Amino acid sequence: MAQLFRTELPDFEVLTDQPQAGDADVPFIVVGRPLPGVIRAVPGLKLVLSLNAGIEHLLASGEVPEALPIVRLVDEGLALGMAEWVLAQTLAWHRNLFHYTELQAKGEWTPLPEKLANERKVTVLGAGALGRPVADHLVRFGFDTRVWARSRHDIAGATTFAGADQLIASVRGSDIVINLLPLTAQTADIIDKALFNAMADGGFFINGARGGHVVDADLIAALDSRKLSGAALDVFRVEPLPSEDPIWKHPKIRLSPHVAAPTHQHMAVKEMAANIRRFENGEPVLHAVDRSLGY
Amino acid sequence: MAQLFRTELPDFEVLTDQPQAGDADVPFIVVGRPLPGVIRAVPGLKLVLSLNAGIEHLLASGEVPEALPIVRLVDEGLALGMAEWVLAQTLAWHRNLFHYTELQAKGEWTPLPEKLANERKVTVLGAGALGRPVADHLVRFGFDTRVWARSRHDIAGATTFAGADQLIASVRGSDIVINLLPLTAQTADIIDKALFNAMADGGFFINGARGGHVVDADLIAALDSRKLSGAALDVFRVEPLPSEDPIWKHPKIRLSPHVAAPTHQHMAVKEMAANIRRFENGEPVLHAVDRSLGY
Repeated sequence: MAQLFRTELPDFEVLTDQPQAGDADVPFIVVGRPLPGVIRAVPGLKLVLSLNAGIEHLLASGEVPEALPIVRLVDEGLALGMAEWVLAQTLAWHRNLFHYTELQAKGEWTPLPEKLANERKVTVLGAGALGRPVADHLVRFGFDTRVWARSRHDIAGATTFAGADQLIASVRGSDIVINLLPLTAQTADIIDKALFNAMADGGFFINGARGGHVVDADLIAALDSRKLSGAALDVFRVEPLPSEDPIWKHPKIRLSPHVAAPTHQHMAVKEMAANIRRFENGEPVLHAVDRSLGY
Repeated sequence: MAQLFRTELPDFEVLTDQPQAGDADVPFIVVGRPLPGVIRAVPGLKLVLSLNAGIEHLLASGEVPEALPIVRLVDEGLALGMAEWVLAQTLAWHRNLFHYTELQAKGEWTPLPEKLANERKVTVLGAGALGRPVADHLVRFGFDTRVWARSRHDIAGATTFAGADQLIASVRGSDIVINLLPLTAQTADIIDKALFNAMADGGFFINGARGGHVVDADLIAALDSRKLSGAALDVFRVEPLPSEDPIWKHPKIRLSPHVAAPTHQHMAVKEMAANIRRFENGEPVLHAVDRSLGY
C-alpha cells in the first residue's frame, strides 16, 4: 500500500515505521486498528484516515484525540462490492438457488413456486454510501423496495422511512431485510425479536454491516421457530467467529468471513490520496466522521 | 387460464374443449405442446399463440400448417424472471457464495480472493427479449459485458459481436458465458469444446435457454479438466433430466428444473390478449415467428 501512495502522491514522503521523537512532523496517518499509543505518538498529526468504512472501534478505543479529525474510507470499490454481495444473497434466496441444490442432492426434479421481484417486499436498513446503491439495484429488478435510515432520504422508486419511530413500520411484512447501517450507540442491538416478528413469515435476513447490530439469540430463535426461513451473515460480534459459536452449524444460516465489501487497494489509495489533497488545499474532506453521530 | 382470458377479452367466447366438426370457426388457439392433429382440426384457425418463448418443438412437430402464423410468448414476466435467475447465478459464482457454504461446512474462516465486477468478462449469447435485459443488468453492475447474436445489436455499455464468424471472439477470455439463444438449426450444438476452450481458465457457464445448444460431453470434459470451474443449468435435452444422467451428480454442476423463467399467467394472458386484439384490428402482431430463421 505504501508503494501505491508513493505513486498517487509523488511529492509526499511516505513512511511505514513509527516516527521517532525529534522526527519531522507527520500530518497524515492511515490506520486500521492501531496499537495503543501509536496515534498519539505521531508528531504534528492533523488527520486520521481510517482503512474502514465503519469506525466504531476507532472511536471506542479512545486512541484518537477529540480534536483530531477522522475520515472514513468509503471507496467506490467498497460500495460496489457490497452491492454485488447483497444482490447475490437477495437473488439467490428469492430464486431458491440453495433450495434447488438440496433437491439436486436428493435427485428430485421439483419446480418450486417462483415469484417475481415485484411480488417481494425488501427493506434496506441504511441509506448512505452502501445502502443507496443497493436500493437502486433492488428498484431496477422490480422489488417492492423500502429504505429506513436515521434521517429522511429520497431514493427514486423506493418508499423511505426515517427515525426510530418508523423502524418497525419499515420492515412490516418484508420478505427480506438487509442491514447496511453504521454501528453507533443508537443502532447497536437494533435488529431483535420485535423487528423479526414484524417481517413476513418465512422471511430472510442479510447482514453486511456489523455483528453488533443483531441480537444473535433473537435471530436464532426466529430461525428455529420458522418465523424466518434463513439468514446470510458476513459479520459477527467476534471475528473470526469462534469455532464453538452455534452460528457455524445452524442449518438456516449461511456465513461468509467478512468478505462482502473487501477493500480494493488501488481504489482505496486513490480515495485517501484525494482526501489528503483536499485537506492540503483547505477544502472540506469527504466522509469526515461526525463524533456526535458516531459515524 | 381460460378465466383470465374471459376477463381480458370479455367480448370473445373462450373454449377449453376441442371444437367438433360443424362448429363455428375458432380463429385463435393457445398451445404448449399440442397433441397430433389438434391444430389441424380447428375450423377457421387464423393464428397460433404459443405458451412458450422457444417454439422449436412446435416447428419440428409439423403440426402447424405453413400458411398459419405463430406468435411466441414473450411476456414481460418471462424476461424479468430470466434476468433475476441469470443475475442470481452470475453474482453467486462471482462472489463465491457456494464456495463459502462449503467452507462453512468444514468450519473454515477463510476469505477467498474477491474481484469486483469490472475485473470479470461476461458474454451473453443472445440479444433478444431475454438477452438484452440481462446485458443491461450486467452493465449496471460494472461487468465487462459482451453480447453475441446472429445479427448486429447496439447495447449501451456492452461490446457486441454478430454472426457465426465472431462467436469465438465474443467468448475469448470470458469468465462467465450465459446462453439465452433461441434454439434453431444454426444454434443447435453451438456451445462445444471450441467455445469452452476460448473462455478464461476456471470460467463458469450458465444455460437458461435450451439443452440442445450444448454438447453435454464437451461441457463435462471442460469441467473435469478444470478448464471450467462450474456450470448452472436450468434446461436439458430431455426434461425432466433422466435419473441416470451424470449431470445429476456432477459436483461442479448446479441444476434447477426449468424454472429460470416461469410463465406468469396474468402477464402472459395480457400479452396474448393484446396480440389477439392487434390481429383483429389488422395491426402487426408482436413476436411473430419467422420460419426462415426458426424463431
